[in-house]
Amino acid sequence: TITDLPELVVVTVATENTDGLKRLLESAKAFDINIEVLGLGEKWNGGDTRIEQGGGQKIRILSDWIEKYKDASDTMIMFVDAYDVVFNADSTTILRKFFEHYSEKRLLFGAEPFCWPDQSLAPEYPIVEFGKRFLNSGLFMGYGPEMHKILKLKSVEDKDDDQLYYTMIYLDEKLRKELNMDLDSMSKIFQNLNGVIEDVELQFKEDGTPEAYNAAYNTKPLIVHGNGPSKSHLNYLGNYLGNRWNSQLGCRTCGLEVKESEEVPLIALNLFISKPIPFIEEVLQKIAEFDYPKEKIALYIYNNQPFSIKNIQDFLQKHGKSYYTKRVINGVTEIGDREARNEAIEWNKARNVEFAFLMDGDAYFSEPKVIKDLIQYSKTYDVGIIAPMIGQPGKLFTNFWGAIAANGYYARSEDYMAIVKGNRVGYWNVPFITSAVLFNKEKLEAMKDAYSYNKNLDPDMSMCKFARDNGHFLYIDNEKYYGFLIVSDEYAETVTEGKWHPEMWQIFENRELWEARYIHPGYHKIMEPEHVVDQACPDVYDFPLMSERFCEELIEEMEGFGRWSDGSNNDKRLAGGYENVPTRDIHMNQVGFERQWLYFMDTYVRPVQEKTFIGYYHQPVESNMMFVVRYKPEEQPSLRPHHDASTFSIDIALNKKGRDYEGGGVRYIRYNCTVPADEVGYAMMFPGRLTHLHEGLATTKGTRYIMVSFINP
Amino acid sequence: TITDLPELVVVTVATENTDGLKRLLESAKAFDINIEVLGLGEKWNGGDTRIEQGGGQKIRILSDWIEKYKDASDTMIMFVDAYDVVFNADSTTILRKFFEHYSEKRLLFGAEPFCWPDQSLAPEYPIVEFGKRFLNSGLFMGYGPEMHKILKLKSVEDKDDDQLYYTMIYLDEKLRKELNMDLDSMSKIFQNLNGVIEDVELQFKEDGTPEAYNAAYNTKPLIVHGNGPSKSHLNYLGNYLGNRWNSQLGCRTCGLEVKESEEVPLIALNLFISKPIPFIEEVLQKIAEFDYPKEKIALYIYNNQPFSIKNIQDFLQKHGKSYYTKRVINGVTEIGDREARNEAIEWNKARNVEFAFLMDGDAYFSEPKVIKDLIQYSKTYDVGIIAPMIGQPGKLFTNFWGAIAANGYYARSEDYMAIVKGNRVGYWNVPFITSAVLFNKEKLEAMKDAYSYNKNLDPDMSMCKFARDNGHFLYIDNEKYYGFLIVSDEYAETVTEGKWHPEMWQIFENRELWEARYIHPGYHKIMEPEHVVDQACPDVYDFPLMSERFCEELIEEMEGFGRWSDGSNNDKRLAGGYENVPTRDIHMNQVGFERQWLYFMDTYVRPVQEKTFIGYYHQPVESNMMFVVRYKPEEQPSLRPHHDASTFSIDIALNKKGRDYEGGGVRYIRYNCTVPADEVGYAMMFPGRLTHLHEGLATTKGTRYIMVSFINP
Ligand SMILES: O=C(O)CCC(=O)C(=O)O
Ligand SMILES: O=C(O)CCC(=O)C(=O)O
Ligand SMILES: [Fe+2]
Ligand SMILES: [Fe+2]
Ligand SMILES: [Mn+2]
Ligand SMILES: [Mn+2]
Ligand SMILES: [Mn+2]
Ligand SMILES: [Mn+2]
Repeated sequence: TITDLPELVVVTVATENTDGLKRLLESAKAFDINIEVLGLGEKWNGGDTRIEQGGGQKIRILSDWIEKYKDASDTMIMFVDAYDVVFNADSTTILRKFFEHYSEKRLLFGAEPFCWPDQSLAPEYPIVEFGKRFLNSGLFMGYGPEMHKILKLKSVEDKDDDQLYYTMIYLDEKLRKELNMDLDSMSKIFQNLNGVIEDVELQFKEDGTPEAYNAAYNTKPLIVHGNGPSKSHLNYLGNYLGNRWNSQLGCRTCGLEVKESEEVPLIALNLFISKPIPFIEEVLQKIAEFDYPKEKIALYIYNNQPFSIKNIQDFLQKHGKSYYTKRVINGVTEIGDREARNEAIEWNKARNVEFAFLMDGDAYFSEPKVIKDLIQYSKTYDVGIIAPMIGQPGKLFTNFWGAIAANGYYARSEDYMAIVKGNRVGYWNVPFITSAVLFNKEKLEAMKDAYSYNKNLDPDMSMCKFARDNGHFLYIDNEKYYGFLIVSDEYAETVTEGKWHPEMWQIFENRELWEARYIHPGYHKIMEPEHVVDQACPDVYDFPLMSERFCEELIEEMEGFGRWSDGSNNDKRLAGGYENVPTRDIHMNQVGFERQWLYFMDTYVRPVQEKTFIGYYHQPVESNMMFVVRYKPEEQPSLRPHHDASTFSIDIALNKKGRDYEGGGVRYIRYNCTVPADEVGYAMMFPGRLTHLHEGLATTKGTRYIMVSFINP
Repeated sequence: TITDLPELVVVTVATENTDGLKRLLESAKAFDINIEVLGLGEKWNGGDTRIEQGGGQKIRILSDWIEKYKDASDTMIMFVDAYDVVFNADSTTILRKFFEHYSEKRLLFGAEPFCWPDQSLAPEYPIVEFGKRFLNSGLFMGYGPEMHKILKLKSVEDKDDDQLYYTMIYLDEKLRKELNMDLDSMSKIFQNLNGVIEDVELQFKEDGTPEAYNAAYNTKPLIVHGNGPSKSHLNYLGNYLGNRWNSQLGCRTCGLEVKESEEVPLIALNLFISKPIPFIEEVLQKIAEFDYPKEKIALYIYNNQPFSIKNIQDFLQKHGKSYYTKRVINGVTEIGDREARNEAIEWNKARNVEFAFLMDGDAYFSEPKVIKDLIQYSKTYDVGIIAPMIGQPGKLFTNFWGAIAANGYYARSEDYMAIVKGNRVGYWNVPFITSAVLFNKEKLEAMKDAYSYNKNLDPDMSMCKFARDNGHFLYIDNEKYYGFLIVSDEYAETVTEGKWHPEMWQIFENRELWEARYIHPGYHKIMEPEHVVDQACPDVYDFPLMSERFCEELIEEMEGFGRWSDGSNNDKRLAGGYENVPTRDIHMNQVGFERQWLYFMDTYVRPVQEKTFIGYYHQPVESNMMFVVRYKPEEQPSLRPHHDASTFSIDIALNKKGRDYEGGGVRYIRYNCTVPADEVGYAMMFPGRLTHLHEGLATTKGTRYIMVSFINP
């Protein structure tokens, strides 16, 4: 029975309250285990145990503390490393496991496959039947007197290696027998991960409880130690173990505590535009809409992209004065992105902000609460560095890595897809986050020059490596949809191709933003099932399609390009070289807008066609004739009656009657019916052949522009 | 002055009153010249002057007659051959010409390029400076005493050659001088055509008067002699000269004298069907409609074509009893076409008919007056053999030849085109007529065995050669449009290809008859400019197109062919092998009706399309999908909603609702509009794509047939 079990005292040594220690204590606490933390605040002299021998200080501190258990032969004492250990069981479970397998033993160390720190000692190790042979000192347990004895056996310096200390005792057969020492070779209790991360996987019990499963020995270790370079794998397991994430119940530690009346802290918002990114205007617009008082925001903007200068200026013009304070680097500068980020950190610190949000220009946040929520996550979960998960729409590319390869680059974790797709929701300790990161004050302090930590790496990778190397956990939160990553991969080329409005070409890469900018706001209404599309003349539908902005920008592109046809019948652009009913026009293939416009029509026009001309299906739409026409009284004012080389055509009015021109309109001769076609962005959709002989009526004043597409020739 | 001129006496010798003599006298009469005809009724002993020497009989008869002019030294006597001479001037003109060029002479003979009949005499001829050297005795003139002298100089037998007689005198230098003889070497008066037909052409003076023009000597001879083989050329010139045809005034001898109260003579009507000819049914129908009392017609029918037997039977069934008498050879027979024609001539003679009309099955007479008019022409113009000009519509092929080549076959005359096209109108003496010929009683008598005259020639060529060789003139009359020649050149193949109604395939060859038989009688009305074509549903036109007969015959062809598709999606007849919306059908290319149907649509449907779907031009129409659909409740009763692979389609109802089937009709889903489509031969014409989603409604009883064409895919 439970009452037969000895008391379990768990102790650790930690000079600093790191994210790792917090995780250890939280995991233990999840099982009602209270861990005595020794050495907090003490100066660490034990060396950097990641790269060299050391840790003797731990023995010294423990040896002082063990005094009181010298005779406590019914007390079970367990030592665990502080920064890289996670509990996944309560005391009873641990003790029962001990008595089940090691009832005769008085001291039990975890085992590992490497003979560390002195490889030459390997031959002296006793042969084990099965399992790992070598002692690891990150996890061990034993009765009070034996623990007392082993810690006092020899004198030890802070800089000495603690594992070598225990190893030498274990290898002394006489002492081993005397102390009745053993190794948990098959990880029945202790799992040291180094060298065996492939063997140890995450599993869930039927009730959804997470377990570590050692597939090599078919055991379910209760305490897991990310020794050496296996820390990253521990971080992964640690996202679940310690009752943190349950496959039935989801995240057990999530949930925003909304504290209404709390004072709003001063924060920093840092924006970095260091490459050509489309739709910066929209990104800035969203920043302006953030649900956080601007007078509580210290604004730092870094932009080295000429194409975005005007956007920044417009933004500052409109909102600049509202911010608490600001620093702006806009345009050609000697300061690089890396330096700017470091500088921003320092500038943020100097403003004494409680939180600093560093975001890149390609992070588009449609959710204005993003900063507020992140601050709340940071406080509630006690995490100092956290990023909202954002990804490229419809793609697996996001702003975090689930795992990291040995070479320091991206690796896919078992749970990456589940997190990206939202099948697993919560906040996740991951090796790399980027694009938009919140630091709390404490972490901000720690981040000095983090972006220059490794100048061979990109600034964000440098920062993350710095964090990983220094025990700062990086969290990604996928609890809520905040926005997405703008695709900018090939945007650089578009920008340099002499476009006035390169975003117009971005329908493939950034469809959501393209649609928001360029589709008529009334378009979506006409696609509602109960909405009946207007007919201006028999079988001529008239509906809102393109935004006014699109129309304006298209005209600017055309006039910028300027190579209008001469309106004659000879047209080298056509296969036959002959146009029977010529207009003064520019074809979309002349400005490289053909693929885009075809895709647009297939995506936005075809559904309207299918809704109106029912039963006709032709997917994808085809067209060789897509062009902008210019009518002027003194050039070509009108177009004589003709048919189009299409199954159906759409003619879009690009500018405004009364303001830009007088006259215009299309007359359908067979129906003796005229459509004014003067609402900017409205499309007229009509059968191209046979029934709809039509003429373009004269533009009597100014210039009229229309965009014409002959669909399915 | 005129009073100074001597009297001109013109004399000829003719034992028979041939067509040639008639022409001579008519031509002379046109210039108020009266010709004394000697020897009429006398037996001709002068030999066949076409092939051997002879004609001495002429000298004997003249020598008797000249006695009274022995001392008439102020009388000018002119001798002309009877059968092959045409006058083109009056006495004054002739005499003036004589005095202008030959005032010193007393005897003037025509000249020719051949030394005939004794070639060996050529060296003895005196040299002439210019012109023809040799004497011709068909035309000559001289004063009474010299004419008397030359005719009496030597004794002559009937069989002796007259030309040799005169020649020997001329070659005797002493006699020549004594008689003061000369030759009209450059045809200032006399034109002998033999050997120089290329030099002598027809011309018209400014007032339209016809002239013979000798281009070699720049003379305009006044009397023309078709000596030897030049008779055919004389026939041609003779159609104009003698004031017969004036280029300003046209035919001077034409004009039907309509004698109202004349008794209707008994005539014979002979029909020969000796090759496969389409539309015999229509030919017989027209014969039945001839404006001539059937009780005054002895009917002879010869048909050796199996395909026409039924037509003849039907015709006789209906009209046979109305005729005066008849003889019918209908079907397989030992009697050939040649023998039948000879037999018909004899049968006609035995019936004692006044006129006999022999026509072939391919002579289609739309003008019922054809026989009446021909009889009238024959009487009025005193021509015994006459054919109404008919030709293949739109072609130059007709039922006559304008000229004949040396080998006896077709040659094109200078005036052939003008006659065929109706630019020269009248009745024309030509070397060959066929297809439909009227003989008067006299000629009928002469035609015994004419069709067997030369069995190496086709019967009609044999008959014409017989006529030419025997001085019977063959006339073609183009004064009025009587009908046309049915094209039957390749019909034999169509008939043997197992068609039920081979005429259906004859749209190219015999469009007029095809149209009359197969186009809906209401079609022409809808093509009238003011007529508005009905719309049964929006943009769905409904109009009469095919005759009921076409619809019935098409169904019979389809059911006869019988290879209906199985209605499945797999259709090997299609390029893709797949039909999305299959019907049970037979494609026009399966029955070889594709070219025909395309031509039909281009000719009859396209104009309706151009009238209704204005502004749409696509010529010629294209189509790969032309088929007859069969709907049956127990097979495939209906067709689900679909579009057609066409710019526009025509669906023609082929049979009758109520009688043949129940149900049917087409519903245009987008317009929620149904067309019953149940009027036989009516076409529904509608846009194939986009707007006119349609379904074929279920045939609930019987069988419904439609003909569907997808035009301009
Ligand atoms: O002027 C218009 O709006 C009609 C233009 C048009 O029909 C064409 O370009 O095909
Ligand atoms: O049943 C009908 O009349 C319509 C037939 C049809 O639409 C077709 O064959 O394409
Ligand atoms: Fe157009
Ligand atoms: Fe159809
Ligand atoms: Mn450790
Ligand atoms: Mn154009
Ligand atoms: Mn003669
Ligand atoms: Mn079919």
